[in-house]
Amino acid sequence: MNYLLINFILSRVVAIEGLFLLLPAITGLLYGETTDAFVYFTVGIICIIAGILSGMVKPKSNTFYAKEAFVAVSLSWLVMSLIGALPLCITRAIPHYLDALFEIVSGFTTTGSSILTNVEALSHANLIWRSFSHWIGGMGVLVFILAVLPMSGGSTMNLMKAESPGPSVGKLVPRMQQTAFLLYAIYFVLTVIEVILLLLGGMPLFDSLCHSFGTTGTGGFGIKNDSLASYSTYSQNVITIFMFLSGINFTFFYYLLIRKVKDALALEEIRWYFGFYIGAVLLITLNLVANGGKPGQSLQQVAFQVASVITSTGYATTDYNQWPEFSRYMMLFAMFIGACAGSTGGGVKVARIVLYLKQIKKELLQQIHPRRICVIKLDKKGVEHETIRSCNVFIMTWIAVFLLSIMLISFDNFDSTTNLTAVLATLNNIGPGLNMVGPSGNFSEFSYFSKLVLIFDMLAGRLELIPILILFHPATWKKKA
Amino acid sequence: MNYLLINFILSRVVAIEGLFLLLPAITGLLYGETTDAFVYFTVGIICIIAGILSGMVKPKSNTFYAKEAFVAVSLSWLVMSLIGALPLCITRAIPHYLDALFEIVSGFTTTGSSILTNVEALSHANLIWRSFSHWIGGMGVLVFILAVLPMSGGSTMNLMKAESPGPSVGKLVPRMQQTAFLLYAIYFVLTVIEVILLLLGGMPLFDSLCHSFGTTGTGGFGIKNDSLASYSTYSQNVITIFMFLSGINFTFFYYLLIRKVKDALALEEIRWYFGFYIGAVLLITLNLVANGGKPGQSLQQVAFQVASVITSTGYATTDYNQWPEFSRYMMLFAMFIGACAGSTGGGVKVARIVLYLKQIKKELLQQIHPRRICVIKLDKKGVEHETIRSCNVFIMTWIAVFLLSIMLISFDNFDSTTNLTAVLATLNNIGPGLNMVGPSGNFSEFSYFSKLVLIFDMLAGRLELIPILILFHPATWKKKA
Repeated sequence: MNYLLINFILSRVVAIEGLFLLLPAITGLLYGETTDAFVYFTVGIICIIAGILSGMVKPKSNTFYAKEAFVAVSLSWLVMSLIGALPLCITRAIPHYLDALFEIVSGFTTTGSSILTNVEALSHANLIWRSFSHWIGGMGVLVFILAVLPMSGGSTMNLMKAESPGPSVGKLVPRMQQTAFLLYAIYFVLTVIEVILLLLGGMPLFDSLCHSFGTTGTGGFGIKNDSLASYSTYSQNVITIFMFLSGINFTFFYYLLIRKVKDALALEEIRWYFGFYIGAVLLITLNLVANGGKPGQSLQQVAFQVASVITSTGYATTDYNQWPEFSRYMMLFAMFIGACAGSTGGGVKVARIVLYLKQIKKELLQQIHPRRICVIKLDKKGVEHETIRSCNVFIMTWIAVFLLSIMLISFDNFDSTTNLTAVLATLNNIGPGLNMVGPSGNFSEFSYFSKLVLIFDMLAGRLELIPILILFHPATWKKKA
Repeated sequence: MNYLLINFILSRVVAIEGLFLLLPAITGLLYGETTDAFVYFTVGIICIIAGILSGMVKPKSNTFYAKEAFVAVSLSWLVMSLIGALPLCITRAIPHYLDALFEIVSGFTTTGSSILTNVEALSHANLIWRSFSHWIGGMGVLVFILAVLPMSGGSTMNLMKAESPGPSVGKLVPRMQQTAFLLYAIYFVLTVIEVILLLLGGMPLFDSLCHSFGTTGTGGFGIKNDSLASYSTYSQNVITIFMFLSGINFTFFYYLLIRKVKDALALEEIRWYFGFYIGAVLLITLNLVANGGKPGQSLQQVAFQVASVITSTGYATTDYNQWPEFSRYMMLFAMFIGACAGSTGGGVKVARIVLYLKQIKKELLQQIHPRRICVIKLDKKGVEHETIRSCNVFIMTWIAVFLLSIMLISFDNFDSTTNLTAVLATLNNIGPGLNMVGPSGNFSEFSYFSKLVLIFDMLAGRLELIPILILFHPATWKKKA
């Protein structure tokens, strides 16, 4: 293990986080919250100095092997969270450090699950830090570092692969740094456009910023106790559209950018994503109307809610926990599927679900015609055996972590739907689940043991399991035989 | 498609079922239930005659290709169920035919889920028919036909493969017919020993027979409204042991029979099965004791209940629906895993779970050491790629059917735990689930639409998905291109 290289990466992460902490510091100053501003400012400056100092020890080799990349990414996220929780705790917004850690891990991993019962009591500095953490975590802090700080000579593909979601990370352009830069550029532009559109609808600047961070990062921390229910229908609809867009594979936007509209529209994953979304919206709307809902209002709310859970954002304009069982179940379905690979969204990812369904279809055909040769295709190309295998193992590992986590938190003796959806909501980085952790509930009642399990799930979900599991695998820390 | 061959198999199935129907007819006569006896007798005789007549059309070729085998097995089970429901319906025990069909499918598939609210109101003829259906379905009616009626010249391996549970069907001895005969012999002896042991404990002969059919077939239909709660601890313990034994891969008993004790004990699947069982029993007992249960009594009840669900039997001596959430969840875990491949039990099967876990372990090691070559082993032999692939596709298909079924029955608007466990209990052929379908509940409240979905699940679960799904696949019925 190249410890110096990992130290070097961690130093950069800490320094960058220090910079990021200045945003809430400035916000605090603007709103006259001097104590909070001071806390954020102090923590930020210490991070910048510490990061620069420890980053002076240069590693001998810049090459990231898979193992180092996984460890570096996992540790980066851990350190980032441990530091990010400090100001929330020191400002007494969340007095218990473990609660603060839960909240900020939920932020960075773009989950949006909260242990707060009264969000409106927070200062502006704390509110924007929570929302900004979504934005930082959405595209990934290491991708950010790759985008702005060149790693001369080193192979950084493994690093990016470990942090980015999806079964396979395609480079948009041949050079890694340029790809990272392009991704952040698209991300930044999306966010700015959303802020402008929300401002046009009369939402205050502070609210627009927070909600845009939460939307494009597919996070979901609200700044009101009723999430987005009290905002205008216009604002809700703008957010619906941007949630949906943030769940799209960013390759799509890149193709649009270089005017390959046809190629963009031909991407198979995006067609499925669109299909899943439309299908779920229609079925749930029909179910609600059949149970006495008004068609127009139901459609507007369902379009919002489904976009919110399928992209793993987690905002709410209505309490879908109160919907009939079929609709509740469809929401679980959408939560499970998740967004596209290569987006900021969480979940198992549409691409994996599609490969999954195609395998079942192939198997049945194969059983009927044992001698026929069937090939699984995606985007009209045969999918490599290796991709299918790793996709299957991902789903299998996901299920194992899912079932084990439910077992561990069931000691708290809450009902099974609460347990199941609490794990689903954290592992897939959604935010709210059903029953006690539904849109109008929160995670405060869980024991600290369960909160630790859910913190693990949020990190495991955001980093797509393998990096975090490898961190805990003894073979990672053994010297070479 | 060789329709004549399928007709030939179906004829034999109908004739054999006619023979089986004489058991409840005779039971009815012995207990003076003349009307019921008459009904069973009539249906039985008609079946025998019809089966013999239609079996006179001999097929030109005796070779079963995979497709024909799947279709023959699926149709056999459908026809068997459609006929088996008749006497229950005609005797007015279960007036609605679809309810009777649910009940007898639950019987043949060794599920044990019931729509009856008062079992004790049934006649002896009906009671023994329900229990006997478990015994018939446990080892499989086609395996029975193979054992007693030689299929001269034809390849019957595919037929047996389609009906027997587990990722791969090993022949115990080179000849198929002898293997089938051996399996039934072991099965028969196990049943007889259990009857004797129950009689020794003072249980009446009728009750002993019914319970032994239900145990060795891992069915679970009781003849009392409280299942086995009112029987003596001795009887309960005997049944615990025989449930556990019936969940073991029958290869184990074969090795014992030919005195290869070492080989028997070395079977890896059985060690895991034992481990899962002991682990679950200990954890649940600890959880109950921690919640105020008496250690001795808790252990006895937990040993029974876990054996009941892990083998997919479904008997109960206590209402585990009332247990604390952790224990309830552990029961779900055991339900999901199921028994060993090559036993009469249902579920995903221990062998598949083991291969599943080994793949996750291998993947993590492979990520840490990308150049190392890892091989997945079972019983100290490398597992073929094909076996792993088909095992994965099985689990994937299982999950797809599972999730889709929950969606369909959620229209009835019962709570999510009821829906989830109703599907789990039927798809894995267990019997009871939790909440409304818990050990003290039943399936009567579901709509007929949901009952049809659950009937499908029971059949799909018993035949391990592929045969039933192939029956509904359009490519099966297309003529060769």
